[in-house]
Parts: sequence; C-alpha cells; structure tokens
Amino acid sequence: MDSRNGGDGPLRAAVKTEDLNLPYASCLFERPPDSCALVIVGASGDLTARKLVPSLYNLYLRKALPDSFIIVGCSRTRMGDEEFRAKMQDAVASLDQAGIDEFSRRLFYLPVQYEDERSFDGFSGRLRELERGHGTGGNRVMYLAIPPSLYSSTVAGFGAAGLSAEHTDGAGWVRIVVEKPFGRDLDSAKDLDRDLYEYFREHQVFRIDHYLAKETVQNILMFRFANSIFEPVWNRRYIDRISITAAETLGVEHRAGYYEQAGVLRDMFQNHMMQLLALTAMDPPSAFEAERVRDEKARVYRTLRPFRTDRLREQLVLGQYREGVVDGKPVVAYREEPGVDPESLTPTFASMSVFLDNWRWQGVPFRLTSGKRMGRKLTEINIHFKEVPHALFRRTLSDGIAANRLTLGIYPNEKISLTFQTKNPGAVVCLRSVDMEFNYHQNYSGPTLEAYEKVLLDCMTGDQTLFWRQDGVELCWGFLTPVLEECEACGDRAQMLLPYEAGSMGPDQRAGGEG
Amino acid sequence: MDSRNGGDGPLRAAVKTEDLNLPYASCLFERPPDSCALVIVGASGDLTARKLVPSLYNLYLRKALPDSFIIVGCSRTRMGDEEFRAKMQDAVASLDQAGIDEFSRRLFYLPVQYEDERSFDGFSGRLRELERGHGTGGNRVMYLAIPPSLYSSTVAGFGAAGLSAEHTDGAGWVRIVVEKPFGRDLDSAKDLDRDLYEYFREHQVFRIDHYLAKETVQNILMFRFANSIFEPVWNRRYIDRISITAAETLGVEHRAGYYEQAGVLRDMFQNHMMQLLALTAMDPPSAFEAERVRDEKARVYRTLRPFRTDRLREQLVLGQYREGVVDGKPVVAYREEPGVDPESLTPTFASMSVFLDNWRWQGVPFRLTSGKRMGRKLTEINIHFKEVPHALFRRTLSDGIAANRLTLGIYPNEKISLTFQTKNPGAVVCLRSVDMEFNYHQNYSGPTLEAYEKVLLDCMTGDQTLFWRQDGVELCWGFLTPVLEECEACGDRAQMLLPYEAGSMGPDQRAGGEG
Repeated sequence: MDSRNGGDGPLRAAVKTEDLNLPYASCLFERPPDSCALVIVGASGDLTARKLVPSLYNLYLRKALPDSFIIVGCSRTRMGDEEFRAKMQDAVASLDQAGIDEFSRRLFYLPVQYEDERSFDGFSGRLRELERGHGTGGNRVMYLAIPPSLYSSTVAGFGAAGLSAEHTDGAGWVRIVVEKPFGRDLDSAKDLDRDLYEYFREHQVFRIDHYLAKETVQNILMFRFANSIFEPVWNRRYIDRISITAAETLGVEHRAGYYEQAGVLRDMFQNHMMQLLALTAMDPPSAFEAERVRDEKARVYRTLRPFRTDRLREQLVLGQYREGVVDGKPVVAYREEPGVDPESLTPTFASMSVFLDNWRWQGVPFRLTSGKRMGRKLTEINIHFKEVPHALFRRTLSDGIAANRLTLGIYPNEKISLTFQTKNPGAVVCLRSVDMEFNYHQNYSGPTLEAYEKVLLDCMTGDQTLFWRQDGVELCWGFLTPVLEECEACGDRAQMLLPYEAGSMGPDQRAGGEG
Repeated sequence: MDSRNGGDGPLRAAVKTEDLNLPYASCLFERPPDSCALVIVGASGDLTARKLVPSLYNLYLRKALPDSFIIVGCSRTRMGDEEFRAKMQDAVASLDQAGIDEFSRRLFYLPVQYEDERSFDGFSGRLRELERGHGTGGNRVMYLAIPPSLYSSTVAGFGAAGLSAEHTDGAGWVRIVVEKPFGRDLDSAKDLDRDLYEYFREHQVFRIDHYLAKETVQNILMFRFANSIFEPVWNRRYIDRISITAAETLGVEHRAGYYEQAGVLRDMFQNHMMQLLALTAMDPPSAFEAERVRDEKARVYRTLRPFRTDRLREQLVLGQYREGVVDGKPVVAYREEPGVDPESLTPTFASMSVFLDNWRWQGVPFRLTSGKRMGRKLTEINIHFKEVPHALFRRTLSDGIAANRLTLGIYPNEKISLTFQTKNPGAVVCLRSVDMEFNYHQNYSGPTLEAYEKVLLDCMTGDQTLFWRQDGVELCWGFLTPVLEECEACGDRAQMLLPYEAGSMGPDQRAGGEG
C-alpha cells in the first residue's frame, strides 16, 4: 500500500445509515400533554409576542399540544379576546399560516390588576368558566411573564383566589412558571421562595433557565453518561482545567434599567454559567429523572469553595466595555448607553476561577467567563486534559507534547471536537495536533425544538429536569452573594472594574488559580 | 439561539493553522545516512525491480541518500553493470527522470554463485574495490532478496569472505537485511538465527516487516502514547474486546508454490498480525528507541496464552476460498489456482481469538482475522469498549446503549474514527450513534515515505525500531508452532477447513472466546 493514498479530501459524513432509521418523529415529543389551560401573566409584554405565543403556535402546528387546550392571556391592559388574537396573529405572521384560525380560537384574554385582590377573584371566576367550557380538566400552567417586582402580589392574588390549589373542586394539576432573576441575592431569593411556598409546593414551581433547553446543553449529560470512555478521564487525575465561556456581542440593548441593577454576575453567572458548571462537573445521577438530576446539581453547588473576599482579585476579574467596533459597526461605551449612569460601576464582563471541594475535582480550576460586547458570540466548554505523564517521544522533539482538549461547542458551532496528537507523515518522529469534530446536526434533517418550545412542553408534561430547584438557586446565591457584596461595597470598586474595548475578548487580565 | 442552526454541512477541516508551521521537510528524514554501499543479493529478482530500486531512486531524488553511495546488485545471473543499469532504468521509467543518469552511475553488478564458497571470495574482493573507489567508508547494507532456502549458504559465504565483520581492516558498520519468512516454525527459525549469529550480531540484523513502516501503523504508538486521554481506558476495565482484521482481495497470484507450504498462519499471522497485536497491546516503553520498543513487544508475546490444542476449534477458524466474484470479476477456487494441489488443505483464511495473560488484558479477547480473496481489502484495528456501567437513560429508551468503538484504519481508510452516543435532536431522550473521524493525511500536503523507502532508510541509518528482533520472532513461533502442528497433523484437518466463497468476508463461523 502506498502511504500517499488517503488523500486530502474533506472529513466525510459520519453517521451510519442504520442510525437514520430512528423514529425521529417520536423523538421530538413522546405524547401530547394532558388537556390544560396555559395562563400567560403579562400577556401584553414583549416575551409573549416574541417567544411564548410563536413557540406555542409551532407546537400546535406539530400537533404537540393536547386537543383540549386554551391560552389565556392576562395583564393590566384592557383589551378583548379579538384584540389579543389580532396582536398574536401579528406575532406569528412569519410562520406557516395553515393552522392560524383554529389556533386563534384557543386564545382568550382577561384583564387583571396585580395589586388589587378583588381583581383576582373576578379573574378566577372567568378563568374557571373558560376552563370548564373547553374541558381542560382543571389542569393549569400559569406563566409569569412579568417583572420580578410583581411576583409577590401576583402569586398571592392567584393563591388567595384558589388558583394554586391542586385536587380541590375537581381540579387537576397546577403549575407556576417563573422567569429569572430569582431574586438579586440570597435573602431576596429566599423571600421569593417564601412567597411561592405560601400557595405552591416545589413540584408545582418551574423556574426557567432556557439555556438548559438548548439541544447542545441537554447533550452534555448524554455525552458524558451514555459513553463509557469519557467518564473514566473526567476527573482531577486527567483534567488540568476547564473553561466555560459565554461571550455575547450584544450590549445592554433595551434592558439598561434591569442591567444597571444586575450586572454580569447576576445576569449570567447566577443562572446559565452555574448550570453549565453543574452539567460539566456533576456525578452521574442514578436515573435521568428530574429529582435525581437536580440532586446531583445541588451536590455540585454544595462543594463550591467560598471565595476569599479579602483576596477577591486573585480569583475574579470584572470589566466594563468602552466604545469600540463589534461586527464591523462602531458601538458606544456602556456608560453612554441610554438609561445607564454615566459613572456606572456595573460590570459587563466577569471571569472567575471556581474550585469544587470534592474528591473528583479537588484542585482543578473552572474558569467561568462571560461578557457583553465582546469580539464574537461564543458559548463553549473546554476540557483541558493534562499532558502525558511521560513524554517518551521527547528525544526527537524540540517542544513538549500539546495536551488533549475536548470542546463542547454550544454556540455558534454546535459541535463536539477533540484535539489530539498524531504522527506527522514522514520518517522522523514528529507529532502534530489535529481535531476530530462532530457537528451536532450532522446527518440529522428531522425537526428540532427551539428552547422555548421545549420549556413550554416540559411545563405542560410536568418534567422539571431542565428547571431550577429551590435548593440549587439558594446554594448558588449563597456562593455569589458574598462576592457581590464585596464587589459592590468595597472601597476600590472603581479600581477593580477594568475597562475593555467593545469588540475585544475582555480585559487583558484574567483570573488566576490555574496553578 | 435557534437550535436548528449548525446545518448539515460536511465536517470541517480540522487542523489549526498554527500546526501547519511544522518543519515538514525535516520530518521526512533527519539527515542523510552515513556513506555506504547497499548490496542487493538476488538483484535479478522481482522485489529488486518492483520495490527496492524504485524506492532507492525516490530517496535519491529527495536527497535522502548520502553523497558517497553505491548500489551493488548481485545474483547468479551473469550480466554486466550496463545491462543491470538498463534493467533498473526500466524499473523506474514511470518516475521523475531528472536524476536518472547520476543515479545509474551509482549502480553496479557483480555475479555470485550462492553455493560456491570461492565465488564469495571473488565477489568480496571486487566489492571492496568498488567500496574503496567510491569512498563508502566500509559501511555496508546487505539486503537478502533471495528465497529463504538460500539464506544459510549465502550468509555463510559472505561471513567466510569477511564481509560481515565490523571494525576490521578499517571497515565501518555492516548490516544484513532479511525478508520474511523467518523460518517456518520454531525450530527452523532458531536454525536461521544460528546461521546469522555465526557471522553477525543482533544489532547487525534487520528483519523486515514492511507493514511496520506504514505511516498509520507507526502512528498507533504515537496515538496511544502522545495523548493522555486514551491510555487510561486502554485496558480490561474499559475494553470489551479488540479485533484486528487484514482482509485481502488478492488470491495467491504467482506465489502458489510458497503459499501451499505456508498458508495464511505463516504468511500473515506470524508477522503482520502479531505486530499489530503488539502495537495495540503493549505497555508504554520508557523511550521511543529500538530496544525499548522491542522489549515491550517481547513482553506482550511472552504473555500470549498458549492455545489448548485439544480445544483448538473454540479459538480458531480456518477457511479456504472457493470460486466466487471479487471486485465484480469471477475468480477461481484456491484449489484451481495454477500450482495449487487440487486437494490442497492449505488455509487461506484464519480467525483466532488470542488472550494475553497479563494485568492489563486478562480476559479481553483479541480477535485476529486475515484471509485472501475476501470481499474487500481492509486492514483495521477496532477497539470495542464496554457498555456504560449504568444506563441511566434507559428508562426512556427501548434498546440498550451502543458501546463506544475506536477504529484505527490502516487500509484503505487511513483514519482514526470514534463512535459515540449523542442526544438525538428533539424533546424525548433519544440517543444516536455518531462518528468523529480524522483522516491521517487531512491537512497534510507534504511528502510522505512509502513503506520500502522508510525501511531502506532505517537500515542505512541503523534504526531497528521497525524491525523484528530475534526474541520476538521466536516467541511468536513458540506460540504458533503448536497450533500449526495440531492443524497440520490432526486427523480431521479436512473437516476443520471451512470453505468460503471468494468475495465473501470468510466462513460464517467465527472463533469464540468473546465471553
């Protein structure tokens, strides 16, 4: 055989044909959920038109919704069913219109005054009437698409009106969906949970992190635990460090009011970054079930080594973007964004080295990095393995041998990639670094679910696997709150905030702890 | 992010640009070897014109040969330098003719009668004259391209004429190159070694296995030992079984006389298959040096569990091809090949389950399979990993989870491929098997060395890494000889030989031992 054969052709498609016989349709959803009513609280808002109703309409088109199903929008705005339907039809105008008439007939609107208790009573009566009229069996999802400041009174209003109760007056299940932020520190998170628990039990509460519904994020656990060859090296003995990066090119957009109060730590770390950390670091659950998966995540969060607040700068770098160029367009500095204090000290970038005090991860730094207005939109997890223990080829090599790296790409490349060493063709012992790649959608042409579609479907089927549980939220706030307090209270807050040019990959300085 | 992004495009090229700065030219060879003479014994034969001289000419074109270098052909045929040069020019007619005149001037021919001792004396005198005249410093490679039956007298003839001696009368190093077969059983292999040791020491003996010089075969050790993530799972704890396959589409061609005596066990297993086994199973050597690598191979061979000859059929399947169709063309049965006994019981196919009695591999079957006239030409090593210890996703899956498989492709796909499980896009927990692939020549456009070029270069530079050492040869014969004796002596030899259709992948039955 001539070793020059083999060619330089592209890497070939790699899924075997027998794998294409999988029942894809049945992989999209198992069965439609129970009959139910979906109450969108805050239906006149942006999220409803931009995400919720288009997602529901897509699910409807795919026949993923139950036959007896109604969507009841409510908010302070006064409008009737027809006006609401017209608005929602506008919201899905870009989608296939084949089912729009039938879908619209399932849309209803009821106004409610969040601060007025009697308003909830009236709302409750009319809602039950609709539910009875459409045979939803009393099953109900209440989706809070309202600002967190309204959570408390709204939950109390619904609760007092008897809308939270399961198995009374012949009703079925009742679930409440909460969007982040779940509080702004440990105390306020506990307050929120207390408000919820006044009327709901934990199995009724669905705290959304739509990041978790991304296919590639869901795949992290499958990749780790449906393959026998990765788990044996997934620990401190073989892994040198792990970096988790979520870089955005967007600025604060229209959310300056919220962002000024939140900053990058509350906006990204308390939720998405902590979830990616847990998925990367957790032990295998005994079963892929909501409580078992969330048990394991909580076990990770319990091992978060508290930051030494007197030596914060060694583990944490904060930054705020200055003006610059992103995607070829000039953009203003954070402090010049509409609605931002011209002397704002709110961080828009953070990079922190986190350690987990457990058997598996002792001494392995997890570098979590996230920022706005960075050079490119990129979300990925990089597992940096240790170097080979003994470089037996080193005699003929001038340099050391590059260590292996596994990349779990979430955005924009939905891929898994493994960097390893092979012989360089030729007579002398030379190595070269090469990548094997798998693209997540490679050889898959079936339908997929957008994150909000998945999240809404899970709320209706009652699968809490991809939702935050109370203990996880509070454990993460318990870790981050002292950091936030130190950052926001310390005298040298301005010195700690490093400027970075919009369009760069953040301040030059990085958090330490890689030793 | 829309999870439908990512596309169905081809897997992308995967070598990073910084890797392309490697000094490829210097990877091809380190430096030209010492000045030397290369004596081809059996220069009128097929191997010389088909492989040796074309390879040497290619090396010459690449400036991989020393300035003071001559090729001295010898055989029983009477011819002069010019006739030999003309023949060799024909042999390289298809190659770049830029250096042909200069190369031809380095070719010489001296006749020798292998059974006539005085003939060697005369040869010796003329050879030394040529060597002195061309300043080769007394360095000499003697390449035995003659039938094994002539080895003994030829080695003795050269030895008695003083051509084997190093460091006498001002001579430099002397090396002798031997082609397989190295004997036909343990006793004859020992006889051959005894003959060689009469005049040569082990460091002078280069026993060729050109399989070892294939780039992808050389890469096995680099892949295993220059990456930190494979070695931890490269053992009985994580590997279920390993299969090593070398399937040929060719029949016996013009070698019926040899093959009738050898059969597939001597032709393929005693050499190539045992080498692939050793490369797959060996422990890491302390350094990538000839003696350390060959030490580790010998350590593998010492752990070969002897076959229970009374239960041979449980571990060994033998076959012989019948007529059939290969590559679309009808081909005759083995017994109808010219030169083959019409009642021949010579096996042309074997599949054996081999066990290694050591800590790393206890209980892991190595299935070695090789045959002629099979459906396709294919050489590859498949590492079948164990299933995951606990199938935590099984609740929602009807079938078990497919185990991981790593394929080291040697021919025709010079590739590394890893089969693993990922989530199937969709809402339900479905897994699919996908492959990550790396093609060996991907993103490499530099020159490579053909196996014989590599082997000749190593003989001249004195690197024995890719050559058989005496202990390895004898250990393998020690393992195979009782098997051969049982197969060839047993009363039911005919029953043991299963027919298979040419163009199939061998007899239906396979060797057991996978439990």
